[in-house]
Amino acid sequence: MSFDRLIARIIETGNPTVVGLDPKLDYVPEFIRKRSFEEKGNDLKGAANAIWKFNKAIIDAVCDIVPAVKPQAAYYEMYGWQGVKTLHKTIEYAQKKGMFVIVDGKRNDIGATMEAYSKAYLGKTEVDGFQLEGFGADALTVNGYLGTDGITPLTDICKKNDKGIFVLVKTSNKSSGELQDRVLDDGKTVYETMGSMCEQWGADSIGKYGYSAVGAVVGATYPEQLAEMREKLPHTFFLVPGYGAQGGGAEGVAKGFDKNGLGAIVNSSRAVMCAYQKEANCPPEDFAGAARRECIRMREDITNFVTGLNK
Amino acid sequence: MSFDRLIARIIETGNPTVVGLDPKLDYVPEFIRKRSFEEKGNDLKGAANAIWKFNKAIIDAVCDIVPAVKPQAAYYEMYGWQGVKTLHKTIEYAQKKGMFVIVDGKRNDIGATMEAYSKAYLGKTEVDGFQLEGFGADALTVNGYLGTDGITPLTDICKKNDKGIFVLVKTSNKSSGELQDRVLDDGKTVYETMGSMCEQWGADSIGKYGYSAVGAVVGATYPEQLAEMREKLPHTFFLVPGYGAQGGGAEGVAKGFDKNGLGAIVNSSRAVMCAYQKEANCPPEDFAGAARRECIRMREDITNFVTGLNK
Repeated sequence: MSFDRLIARIIETGNPTVVGLDPKLDYVPEFIRKRSFEEKGNDLKGAANAIWKFNKAIIDAVCDIVPAVKPQAAYYEMYGWQGVKTLHKTIEYAQKKGMFVIVDGKRNDIGATMEAYSKAYLGKTEVDGFQLEGFGADALTVNGYLGTDGITPLTDICKKNDKGIFVLVKTSNKSSGELQDRVLDDGKTVYETMGSMCEQWGADSIGKYGYSAVGAVVGATYPEQLAEMREKLPHTFFLVPGYGAQGGGAEGVAKGFDKNGLGAIVNSSRAVMCAYQKEANCPPEDFAGAARRECIRMREDITNFVTGLNK
Repeated sequence: MSFDRLIARIIETGNPTVVGLDPKLDYVPEFIRKRSFEEKGNDLKGAANAIWKFNKAIIDAVCDIVPAVKPQAAYYEMYGWQGVKTLHKTIEYAQKKGMFVIVDGKRNDIGATMEAYSKAYLGKTEVDGFQLEGFGADALTVNGYLGTDGITPLTDICKKNDKGIFVLVKTSNKSSGELQDRVLDDGKTVYETMGSMCEQWGADSIGKYGYSAVGAVVGATYPEQLAEMREKLPHTFFLVPGYGAQGGGAEGVAKGFDKNGLGAIVNSSRAVMCAYQKEANCPPEDFAGAARRECIRMREDITNFVTGLNK
């Protein structure tokens, strides 16, 4: 239970970052798209196949130096069930390569339905007496707007199956403050209140590094809130989106870490997937090599500001 | 744009209810499960096939008297990508039978990613110059915790493609109040604030019945808040879960309607899908007949308290 498995991988690789796999078809080099369309058809099936080939090559290129991947469900669902099949294959393949897989689905619902999501992504579904995995990820992002009874089914499964969740606390987007920064009648902000709930929800699942199975999403684009949350939520591990393309810098991101260099994992999606488009003189055929070079650059950029993490 | 298509169907059928298709495998009669396992295997594929057969029969049995169905994504995702394929087939089939389809996915994310969800469920995805539908539903439930930039991509697509969204305002579960009932420093509750945002987000998409393309989810289990929201949100159409199995009664639910008997659609899932288990002496083979009888009972129960709806 807890995020011990993820943290162990972070220590092992000396790398507190995660590669977001948000594979819009535009990001996939043309030679892969073309070949997929020829082999599978220029339709959703062909698109899903192109994304699968792209993901597989990126995973192969980074799995020894990056602890985790974070596929974003939306970019698979936009290619219909064929895209969702690619999500499943991507999760399975990344795990086979030793990576920790966080499905970014921001799921949320009432208790009984949240149980179904828990089974889908972190647990197993019973069919004719057999226990089968729907997606079998290691962690799932969730939205806590519905309160405790939408979270308990997840924490039950996390404890049982050694999995984790990340609850949205302060998101990286511009309008996140419209609700999240509003102040409640006790003087606390909505995001702070959600953060406190994370500490409560995780209280009985604290692992050997001091972090529970209930993490929080706190955006790199709001370094002050990141620092505030790091101080107020000592047992809550952070997933930090918004570094790079969205504008969050390494110095700001460093505020999400504790004195041991732990406590957070920073996501980068587009900058890694599209590194080949930005790197000078990079042939599209070397897209995975460019992704690896960007991961190394990001690791150095962030660990320069993070003290305590053994490398 | 707006919910005009849904409202026209409600007026036509004289029935302001929606059948929730949340097909846990336990709900599917044994003879269907057994046949599916024999034909397709006792695995996720067989399970997904059993659910498809079950949904299809229920849709056939109710499509002339019920305006809409609401498949809950979690109950498909728990059967992996095969389950998601059944979700797609269910949406397509219900629309072919003239029904309005609300995918209950409670999706939420930052702008760029929300655009991907919008395309997945309400719009089209470009593949090699072709515009293809991922799931092609008529409406999607969403969570507004991330604020305006997580909603705008949806409203853009709603206006373009004549679709709608329902934003979570006050959910039907017990712990919904933990955040939603909290009072902000301007004296308004979180759910009220979210409700006001729905009015703003929908302001430029108001249709001929006075309702916009941005609806709200308000639970039947909180009739006072339902009445309050109906009064404060004159242009926001309500999706009302929590009737029946969760404890909401028809008299309470009626508070969600306007003086013309419009403004809300009430969901029932388990009571319809499992009607054959509760009806005295109903053979499992007649599960779809029992679902239809429960839909008629529910329609009468609710319209008894709703005045103004032409039947």
